[in-house]
Parts: sequence; structure tokens; C-alpha cells
Amino acid sequence: MSDIVTLAHGSGGKLSHELVLDVFVSRFSDGEPDGLEDAAILRLPPGRPALTTDSYVIQPRFFPGGDIGKLAVCGTVNDLSMRGAVPLYLTAGFVLEEGLPLGDLRRIAASMAATAREAGVRVVAGDTKVVERGAADGVFINTAGLGVVADDIHISARNARPGDAILVSGAMGDHGLSIMTRREGLAFESPLMSDCAPLHDIVAALLAACPVHVLRDPTRGGLATALNELASASSVGIEVEDASIPVHDPVRAASELLGLDPLYVANEGKFIAIVPGDCADDALAALRRHPLGREAAVIGRVVEDHPGRVTLRTLLGTHRLLDMLAGEQLPRIC
Amino acid sequence: MSDIVTLAHGSGGKLSHELVLDVFVSRFSDGEPDGLEDAAILRLPPGRPALTTDSYVIQPRFFPGGDIGKLAVCGTVNDLSMRGAVPLYLTAGFVLEEGLPLGDLRRIAASMAATAREAGVRVVAGDTKVVERGAADGVFINTAGLGVVADDIHISARNARPGDAILVSGAMGDHGLSIMTRREGLAFESPLMSDCAPLHDIVAALLAACPVHVLRDPTRGGLATALNELASASSVGIEVEDASIPVHDPVRAASELLGLDPLYVANEGKFIAIVPGDCADDALAALRRHPLGREAAVIGRVVEDHPGRVTLRTLLGTHRLLDMLAGEQLPRIC
Repeated sequence: MSDIVTLAHGSGGKLSHELVLDVFVSRFSDGEPDGLEDAAILRLPPGRPALTTDSYVIQPRFFPGGDIGKLAVCGTVNDLSMRGAVPLYLTAGFVLEEGLPLGDLRRIAASMAATAREAGVRVVAGDTKVVERGAADGVFINTAGLGVVADDIHISARNARPGDAILVSGAMGDHGLSIMTRREGLAFESPLMSDCAPLHDIVAALLAACPVHVLRDPTRGGLATALNELASASSVGIEVEDASIPVHDPVRAASELLGLDPLYVANEGKFIAIVPGDCADDALAALRRHPLGREAAVIGRVVEDHPGRVTLRTLLGTHRLLDMLAGEQLPRIC
Repeated sequence: MSDIVTLAHGSGGKLSHELVLDVFVSRFSDGEPDGLEDAAILRLPPGRPALTTDSYVIQPRFFPGGDIGKLAVCGTVNDLSMRGAVPLYLTAGFVLEEGLPLGDLRRIAASMAATAREAGVRVVAGDTKVVERGAADGVFINTAGLGVVADDIHISARNARPGDAILVSGAMGDHGLSIMTRREGLAFESPLMSDCAPLHDIVAALLAACPVHVLRDPTRGGLATALNELASASSVGIEVEDASIPVHDPVRAASELLGLDPLYVANEGKFIAIVPGDCADDALAALRRHPLGREAAVIGRVVEDHPGRVTLRTLLGTHRLLDMLAGEQLPRIC
């Protein structure tokens, strides 16, 4: 077998089979020999099925704190978690560029398998396409995720109510700034790390502690864009306080250097939770007890005023409009 | 809004939202306003869930008989059908190259929506990423499909048994040869058309007529490769007769001109069915009653001899080994 991906690996013939068996089935199958069926037949526990998908095109494909494979599992697991679903199954579709080192692909597949185990999900179906040199950039991955929502859980972007408290599970901007400093070749005393992580477990801890109205992971467009989406979907106003939003010092420093605002930068292991105001303390305590939530904070509240808009109370005590991301800040951040 | 895809369309910010609402939600949502949730929450009828995925990178993106959008729905619907599942829901992930005409994207989305309606499935979740010029080739689509298999249906690549009859639902090679002649700029008196079509309905008709053991759509690698996969998965021998395999005359002519064998060329609207020998007549009649099965044929049988291997009885009466596709014949055929 050659040590790079060739067009024959995408032919559907002998080399395709060898690639799928060598790279994927060996790592994903858990002894289930269904790798060559057209579709996987599954069992689902009681509840409502939840389905989602995301494609991953991040550049570079290996970065501090993760790689495109880990990201492709976390991102889709987290999208399920954001509806309160227990993630159960993933599909994985690969578009590979001719010439990709097979070693890179094996490393990515191993990372996906390890992250899937951590998240309690199984990769049950996959597909591999190969395009000629120059028609893609190394590797693109799509994952779709299937989970189940318990019947008593009703979480939606439309459920924020005036009086609700707004929390974040940790510091903002780590993923985006770690990728950007890596791309720009910047070095810092404390190296920046992506926060890429599966959120199923900390979400379960939060759901056990209080009746959550809204969950949202602030990925592309960052916290500011996600809050705008929620204000718009729920037809409510949102007020957040700059001083309450956790941002790590190296992220702040890198942001200033690169001219970026950490509130508009992607996160891949954090989420926004909107809960009834009288549950804010319980929610905060539940988040802080979890290893992924030690820096959780209450950052603001939902109001009746200015529906669809988000305001930020600055360190000087003034208020300014916090708008959605306009234009493009960080291509291929996820 | 500009008339081409820009990096800002992939930012997650304002332009991303406008693109998703303009191009996708308006065509896919059926009035359901869940386009901005992180995951779709669904209902499934009784039975076992079936899950599959495929990515589509076909070049050119518009071709006689279809386009990449129609293909992305048919291919995944058909993978569900090949397990006997009723297809219900799709996800759609797009990787777009900066500079793609938005008109092309709208046309592709409209084609997906029309094909989804025809196949009785709903596109319930989606994602759009944009990469810089030269980092992809126009548009790549991934679809994942979720369906349900009735409890009394058990179809698997492993279920072929000696004595079973092997049928195909129609002529072989139309899709692959139509793409190749289009790429090569060849013109024929009768223009070649892709057979791209959703197979859910003809499969339902077949399942009502007889107890099917195996279904497989011979896509990449064609009939020969698919038969080898089935012989191997079921540990049986397969014997087919060249004279019984329907191939349209223009496909045969184009194959000779291009040096291709239609038995190794992709189909996107045909399938292999393996059924108990005493059901062959009922199965054939059921297929031929359906508009997509008028040219269905019994092409061979499952034997105990040479397990894992496929033999072809030629027009001269000799037998030769019909191997899997080796090497790459037709890059980016789907």
C-alpha cells in the first residue's frame, strides 16, 4: 500500500476496501462487522431522536489541543448536547485530496476513535471520496450525529424568557486564538490551546441541577454572534457584562496583537446556558463542579427591552450594542 | 448580496445567516422554523432506525439526467433502501469554494428539495463551510440519511444463500458513461443520460412481492465490484451470465470508444436483488411493473462453489473470473 492517498483509494474497488478496512473499520468498528453494509441498523432508547450535521475544514489539521478528527467528533456531539440530547451514533464522511499522507489519515482516524469513546458515541457509517491534487485541501470531514432527548427535556434557541440568567461554561476565545496564532507563527510564553472537548457530560450535570431553557455552543462567530441568534430566536433582549465574561490573559494578549475581539472568536468546548433567574446559583455550582466548567460564570440576563438585540455593559459602565459578526474574520477555523 | 460565494458566507455571522435562510431554509424547511437550532428533534415510526452517509464530489456538477444535488439525495436515500429501510430524514453538509456562483448553489438546492419531495424525505439539518479559492472544487455535499426498517425485514450483504437468484433492476453503466462522455466532450446520436433516481418506491414494491435476502446498489466500481462484495460478505460463489445483463446500446458503444467495461461503471438508479430461487419470477414481475424496473432481468445465481468469487459466463459459453475493480477508472463519478 502506498504511503499517500491516491485516486484509486476513492475508486470503490480494491484499494478503497483496503483503505476502509485498514484506516477506519479497524478503529471504529468495536468488533461489529457491518463496515461493508450500505446503512447501519441501530437501536435507540426511549425518547425523541435528535439529528445534526457539521463539516470540518479546519486549517491546520493538527493544532495545539486537538486535530480535525477530534474536532469533527466534538463539534457534532456538542450540537446534539445543545438540544439536551444524549449523543449515541455518528456517521463520518471524508473528502481526501490525492497526495494526503496516509499517516495523517491514520492519526486523524485514531483521534476520532478516541474522542468518540470519550463521548460515548459509536461511528457506525462512513464514506470516503478522493479528489485529484488541488481539488481539495488535504482532508475535509463531515460528521452527522444521532442522539435521543428525554421526554421531559425541552431546550430550544426560542426558549429564553425575560428574567432568565445567562451563563457561560468557561473562558471565551481559546480555540480561535490558538488556531490564529498557530497560523501566524506567533509564540507566547503560555502557549494557547484549543478548548476542543465533548460537552455531553457537563451538560448532563447541568440538566440534573436545573431546568435549562437554552443551550448554545458559541462556535463560528463567537459569543457575540451566538447571543444575537438567541435574542432573535426568542424575541427577547440580552444584556451581558464585559467584566463577567471570562477570557484568559494570553487570549486577550493575542487578540490585541491580531486585532481580534475574543467575543467574536470560535470556541469548541464551551457553551452558553440560559436558565430561570432563580436557578442561576444552582446552575453555576453544577458547572463549576465539573472539570470542564471550573471557570463558569454568570455573564448577564434576559430582558424584555430591545428584543432581538444584545447589549454589553463595558468596564466603564456604559452600554454598547453587541452586534453579530459582520464580514469574515477567521476562515477555516472549524 | 453578491452573486458569488465569499469567505464571509462561511463566517458564521450575518452573511452566513442570510445565505442559509435565502438558499436552504426557504427550500428545505416546509414551514418548520428550526433552521437555526443546533440539532433537529424528530419523530420515528416503530421499527429499527437505519443510518448512513455519503459525500458527493462529482464533476461536472450538472450533467445529463441530474446534478450533484439530485445525486446527493438519491445516493443516500438509496443506501437506506438497500437495507430495506423507509427513508425519512436527511442532513446536508456543504463545502463551498469561494467564487462559486450563487446561482449554481440555488439550482443545486432546488434540485435537492425536489428530489427529497419525490423520495418522501425531509432535509432537517444542514451546515455550510466556505474555503478559499483553490482549496476545493466548487461544491462538495455530504448527506446523512435516517430511516426505519420494519421488524420483519432482514436484508444484509451477508444473507445470500446458494440457490438464490440474482436480479438487476435495469441496465448497467448509464450513469458512469454519461458522465465520462460529457467530460470527454463526446457526442452520440442517442445522448447518454445518468440513471440517477431514488429507489425507495421500487424497493417497496419488491419487498411486497417476495422475501428479499440482499439488496445492493452498484455505484462506484459497478456491478462487478458490488457482486464481489456480496460474494465475500456472504461467503458464497456467484455466477452471472453476460448475455443476461442489460446494457443499453449507446452505453456499449461509448464503453468501447473509451475503453471501459460497463460492468465496472457506476450506476445511481439501479440495484442488485438476491432472492430465494423460487421467488425469482415474482421478484422479476414486481420489478418490471415499476417504471424504474421495466428492463429488470435475472442475471445469475448464488452457488456453493468458489466462495467469495464471481464468475461470468461469456457469450462464447466460457467462464471467466469477474474480479473487483483494481486501480482507478473514473475519478469523481459521484
